[in-house]
Amino acid sequence: MTFEQLWQALTPVGRSASSGGYFRQPFASAERECHAWFVEECAARGLDVEHDGNGNTVAWWGSGDDAVLTGSHLDSVLDGGAYDGPLGVVSSLAALDLLRDRGFTPARPIGVAAFAEEEGSRFGLACLGSRLATGATDPAAARELRDRDGVPLLDAMAACGLEPELGRAAWLEQVGCFVELHVEQGRDLVDRDAAIGVASEIWPHGRWRFDFTGEANHAGTTQMEDRHDPMLTYAMTALAANKQARLAGERATFGRLEVTPNGTNAVPSRVTAWLDARGSTDVEVASLVAEITRQGTERALRDGTVLEVTAESVSGAVFFDGDLAGRVASPGGWPIIPTAAGHDAGILSAAGIPTAMLFVRNPTGISHSPSEYAETADCLAGVEALADTLERLAS
Amino acid sequence: MTFEQLWQALTPVGRSASSGGYFRQPFASAERECHAWFVEECAARGLDVEHDGNGNTVAWWGSGDDAVLTGSHLDSVLDGGAYDGPLGVVSSLAALDLLRDRGFTPARPIGVAAFAEEEGSRFGLACLGSRLATGATDPAAARELRDRDGVPLLDAMAACGLEPELGRAAWLEQVGCFVELHVEQGRDLVDRDAAIGVASEIWPHGRWRFDFTGEANHAGTTQMEDRHDPMLTYAMTALAANKQARLAGERATFGRLEVTPNGTNAVPSRVTAWLDARGSTDVEVASLVAEITRQGTERALRDGTVLEVTAESVSGAVFFDGDLAGRVASPGGWPIIPTAAGHDAGILSAAGIPTAMLFVRNPTGISHSPSEYAETADCLAGVEALADTLERLAS
Repeated sequence: MTFEQLWQALTPVGRSASSGGYFRQPFASAERECHAWFVEECAARGLDVEHDGNGNTVAWWGSGDDAVLTGSHLDSVLDGGAYDGPLGVVSSLAALDLLRDRGFTPARPIGVAAFAEEEGSRFGLACLGSRLATGATDPAAARELRDRDGVPLLDAMAACGLEPELGRAAWLEQVGCFVELHVEQGRDLVDRDAAIGVASEIWPHGRWRFDFTGEANHAGTTQMEDRHDPMLTYAMTALAANKQARLAGERATFGRLEVTPNGTNAVPSRVTAWLDARGSTDVEVASLVAEITRQGTERALRDGTVLEVTAESVSGAVFFDGDLAGRVASPGGWPIIPTAAGHDAGILSAAGIPTAMLFVRNPTGISHSPSEYAETADCLAGVEALADTLERLAS
Repeated sequence: MTFEQLWQALTPVGRSASSGGYFRQPFASAERECHAWFVEECAARGLDVEHDGNGNTVAWWGSGDDAVLTGSHLDSVLDGGAYDGPLGVVSSLAALDLLRDRGFTPARPIGVAAFAEEEGSRFGLACLGSRLATGATDPAAARELRDRDGVPLLDAMAACGLEPELGRAAWLEQVGCFVELHVEQGRDLVDRDAAIGVASEIWPHGRWRFDFTGEANHAGTTQMEDRHDPMLTYAMTALAANKQARLAGERATFGRLEVTPNGTNAVPSRVTAWLDARGSTDVEVASLVAEITRQGTERALRDGTVLEVTAESVSGAVFFDGDLAGRVASPGGWPIIPTAAGHDAGILSAAGIPTAMLFVRNPTGISHSPSEYAETADCLAGVEALADTLERLAS
């Protein structure tokens, strides 16, 4: 089956008719449909499909230790693009088809993984599936996670027929190295005029919850001077975050917000906002968040509101295995570039598994958006690059 | 039955266990429970209960024209207080009881009204019930209204057993004058050391929807310089609104917000925010909104975003009938004060019905909040004041 045929099977699943973006939240219908499709395609190829208790699925070509793992994830951010995640899964299947067409017989098993809740769009913790499988996240902490409707993780998993058993996955013991193919989420490869790149490192990044608490009141009768309006404290903090990140050449985003009671004619009692912050070193990220917190707290004092900041997830810098990156990149002459996006590859790398990432050029650099895109020719180059890489690593 | 007994019957209905605030949105369970209670209490008093097709209910003591109408509303803002609305309804029933205890027989009919969706907390248009009954809102426009879940007004009404037939209410023809008792939503009466006040006018006010449109993108990989982030444009606009209102001695509030897609790791594609603006004259409100729009548009140009402003409801200044205010206020020596809050009384007054409002002192001035409060002694003074007023007007 060609890459295009595989790709087209997934295209309609979970796409919003109004925005054209994707809503593939984990353990809900669209993502489950993608997952069922993946299992069927693996079965059709005679792969041995294995589910762990964390929602991750791995399909094996061959058995034994020191396996070469590839794959990515099928879930999306809210109203996300088609490529972030699925491109890696579809390319893995297409690369296997290509290797078989070439008559290649692997000397080591090859596995294709579909990791659960990579985006953290439902339970707030990115790379949840790989974090649980590697032990990076404690199962007891994961059991406390709830989605925006208050549904606990285990209930959501059970509701779609899974039998959750959170914790370290046995199948990881068999993995000798991991290669994840992913659409680039920036324009580095455009600037370098290259269809394919290899990752050097992932910037440190994290999510911090900013709770601004004030005093609800009538929007009409309460004089401006008498208010303790947390919306103002939030607004100033959002502007400060942007300015600090710009000055430091880092990233700070407030993209998610909850307002209480969220009524037009009421001064809010509370604004909760999530800060996504990233930078080139752990120290830089920490000092960026500290500076945003300081400015927010200073403004809270003026507004008569209170700001509390809670770190929800913080991922340190990940430096991918330099030898492996060289071995992957050299034959094709592909550039080695850093990324500011988190990936399951980062989690597996941090767990001590030699890991590499292949990036496929993104002509606009736009990602996490309905307009995320990659040219078919570049996707096909990605399949070829992944097949070549797997062939070298599994020989 | 005493005022306290009546009051306590309503106290638990729709109260949030966590905040202590009230969620009595129209045509939903808690508000319907309050409404059923009201109908029962009216029936127990032998009043003739009449429902119009707009969700309003009026109970009559006596029949005929030139009636004296009192009452208020039973719905609340999201997480609102106990007094805003229900105090007027409960006080009306208690005032009727008091008049009967006094042996009073009205020469003109007295009606007690419970108006629907006064707060606009579900369908976005404040005073919806009285607007429809007086013809201030076109039924065709009201049929287009939807709640946050997309439920149309007529469906919501039908779902709770009502038979909606929107438009001018026949019962209004019988009304000669209207007196609404309401908790004060400010500290004017505290400053004047008075338990009761009478309204002179309602400030002009309205709701404007601000749609900020940008470009969704990845929160990690997109450089700050490459973003078109509508959250920044919104944040600056919210701060500008506050500053302009303070400078002008008016009111501007952004209390309600919807972010799309509202994900932590995505730059938003859209932020929709509702501005509540009020001022002492129509011209002042218009120029306040224009100035906020101008500053927001200027910032949008810098951010590469687009701001569109839509007026959702605009209410001009309402000057209550001066003669009636004098007749109501003089015997008790109650002060006559303006308010910045909208009321059904404003809608009926604008429809040409001589209308007065009685305010009951609010010790903190806080309203639209779980901490909204009035002392029982002041509430009892309110019942007495309303009974005295009804007795004079219906004699």
